This record gives sequence, C-alpha cells and structure tokens, in this order.
Amino acid sequence: MLKDEDIRYIEKALPFWSKLDKSDKKFLLNHIFPVEYEKGRPIHSGSMDCIGVLLIRKGDIRVYMLSDEGKEVTLYRLSDGDICILSASCILDNITFDVYIDAESACDLLVIESKYYQQLCNKNIYAENYSQRLVIDRFSDVMWAMEQILFMSFDKRLAIFLSDEAARTGSDVIELTHEQIAKYVGSAREVVSRMLKYFQGEGIVELSRGGVKIADKKKLKALIM
Amino acid sequence: MLKDEDIRYIEKALPFWSKLDKSDKKFLLNHIFPVEYEKGRPIHSGSMDCIGVLLIRKGDIRVYMLSDEGKEVTLYRLSDGDICILSASCILDNITFDVYIDAESACDLLVIESKYYQQLCNKNIYAENYSQRLVIDRFSDVMWAMEQILFMSFDKRLAIFLSDEAARTGSDVIELTHEQIAKYVGSAREVVSRMLKYFQGEGIVELSRGGVKIADKKKLKALIM
Repeated sequence: MLKDEDIRYIEKALPFWSKLDKSDKKFLLNHIFPVEYEKGRPIHSGSMDCIGVLLIRKGDIRVYMLSDEGKEVTLYRLSDGDICILSASCILDNITFDVYIDAESACDLLVIESKYYQQLCNKNIYAENYSQRLVIDRFSDVMWAMEQILFMSFDKRLAIFLSDEAARTGSDVIELTHEQIAKYVGSAREVVSRMLKYFQGEGIVELSRGGVKIADKKKLKALIM
Repeated sequence: MLKDEDIRYIEKALPFWSKLDKSDKKFLLNHIFPVEYEKGRPIHSGSMDCIGVLLIRKGDIRVYMLSDEGKEVTLYRLSDGDICILSASCILDNITFDVYIDAESACDLLVIESKYYQQLCNKNIYAENYSQRLVIDRFSDVMWAMEQILFMSFDKRLAIFLSDEAARTGSDVIELTHEQIAKYVGSAREVVSRMLKYFQGEGIVELSRGGVKIADKKKLKALIM
C-alpha cells in the first residue's frame, strides 16, 4: 500500500503524470510498490526477470553487461532521483539486449510493474515518449562508457575512476578491493593491481588493506588531462 | 525538386506520414532532397555536421566511432530501405555522442534536413516517437557490437565477420584488404593478418591479393558455434 508521501514522490518524478487522466493515474498507483534492497544485492539479471521501472528514491545502482564467462563491463550508474527503465526492458520490443543491475548501496525504490507500465505506454503516447527519452539518455551513457573502454589508455581510465570515486564519496580513501575496482572499470583484477602498483611507485596513491588512498592529487589529475 | 516517385517513396518510408496534416506534409516535402554518394565517401563526421535524416533508397552505410588517434570501431551498418537518424543527432538533445558515417557502396539517399525535421518532431509527437524508436533500435545494434568486441574471442569475431560478409555479398570471396577488415571488426591490421594466416594454416581460408576466399565453410561455422 502506498503512503501519501509515496504518491507525492510519484507525481513529481513522472513528467507525464499531468498527461494522464484520472483512471490512468489510479491504474498506475495500483501497480506501484515500494521495495528496499540491501547493499550488493542483485536487482535485475539479464533476461531472467523484468522487474519494472525503478524510481530511485535513495541509493545507487550499477548497470552492467555480463559475459558467459562472467566478465562484467559497467555501463552506467544511477542514483537518488533517477529512474531506471532498462529493468523493464522486456516491455520495449526494440531492446534486444540484456543488462544486469545491482544495488551498490542500500536502495529505497518505488517499482512500477512492467506489465502495467507497458499497458500505460500503449495507451498514452506521452508515457511512451518519456520512456523512450529515458532509454536514449542511457544510450548516451553507454556510448560514453564504450569510448572510455575502447579508446582510452588504461592508466587514464583508472585515474579517472579513482578521481571520480574520491569526488563522489568526498574522501581521498577509496574503500574498494582491486577486484571491485576491476569490475567497475571493466578490466581484470591483475591489470588493476599492476597499474595501482605502478601508481604507488610514482607516489600517486598509497595502497593498504583498506583500499586505495590518493596521495598526490596533482599527479593524478595530470594523468587525466 | 522531388519527383513523383520520390514522394511515393517518402509516403511509404515514414510510418508517421498518415499522422501528419496537409500543411505538415507539404512542409516536410519542401525540406527533403535527393543526394547520391560515391562508394567510400564520408556522409557524416562526428559533431562537424548534422546533415539530416537519411532515407536509404539504395546503398550501404557504415556507422562507426572514431578515436582521437584515428582508431575506428564499427557500430552497425544500414542498407536499402533503412532510415538513418544518428546523422541528425544534433536535433536530439539527449544524444551526447558523435558518430561517423561513410558510404560503403554507391548510395542513393533522400535527406530530410535536420532543422526542419526537428521542427516537425516538436510539433508532432508521432514523428518524435518514431524518431526515438529508431534511435533505440540503433542502441540495440550498438549493444550487440559492444558484446562482440568486449566479450568475444577474436577468432570467433573474425569468423562471424567473414561468414556474414560471404552471405551478404553472395560470394565466397571477400574482396577486402586486411586493413578494411580490421576497420570493420574494430581491430588492428596486424591482428587481422595474423589471424587470417592462422585460418589459412587450418585450411579455413585462402589468402590472395584480391582478398579472402572461404575454403572450408564447415570449419568456419565450427568457429562460430
């Protein structure tokens, strides 16, 4: 059952809300439910499920590709206030690929069930239009990731990741294992460990059990330029 | 000036044609022009231009990413009857990436000028909706290419390319240089040459000045399975 604050959140979050008639609004609200995920939990796994459209009230999710051999490539992340549409990709007949989605932190979500969201989009072209716009936003994100992965030298890519992560968390210490960093930058653990060791040798970072500490921001920035 | 056959082609090619009123139809026809490209000519170059929506009456185009260092990665190809929207990406405010487009064969196109197409999309949600669908189709193509490049072993990727190319041209002889093949599969010439030599050693292909001849289809197929 939705609370009043849930309903207020939905009205604000969906730009096409005002284009829905009374019965459509009621229909939609009947098929939205709140859900929480613990940090690290999988939310969506390729073609295995199609949970629905996710309204992220609080939390961070990571969307990635997964190969048959278990190799992961991060496509993009979404957080507070974002709406995730690829978790309902089954309703978009021209999306022929699968993605995986994990909760990167504790997540407080509102979920619009796929089947009913599809019914709404079929009835209301504004809802469909908005959903398509969301997908195209993610297309741009994916192209950015692809450029990073295919065109950028690995030292630069790793430097950008460390710098972004420090900015995001507001801390110079990145509390991630080499394994985790490798997942995020779409590489192998050994490759990350080797480059981090090189960075340490250059005085750019300090490595410890707890993670990676940025020791010289200027040198790190110089790698990114 | 459009000929009657041009107009008939446009009416058939644009699914939203019936949703346009008389004045919009006239407006659109006033801003479409036929254009021909010779084989190998660039049609669209990143952010440098925004030629418009391309209705491909005849011909093949290749859409690719290009790095600062000149590395190319093929994203997808379009041919007879397809409509290319990313050549008008400047009108889609949520597309933040640039692609390059070349004519792979002699091309006979009808071009809807970007500026006027945008005006139409702003006025008519069905036109906008159709354009977004086209972009999302291309998103699926790009994800497919990305999976190939990031996840698939190179021998498999090259085998798929040779097999597809033979099917496409209806010939067992692929008349492309190693350099060209490298561009299409997003690799380096040396890597392609090395793998082709290996394929030749296995009796899968025969190499000559004119290109690559598939010598053993069964063995090639086995690589793909």
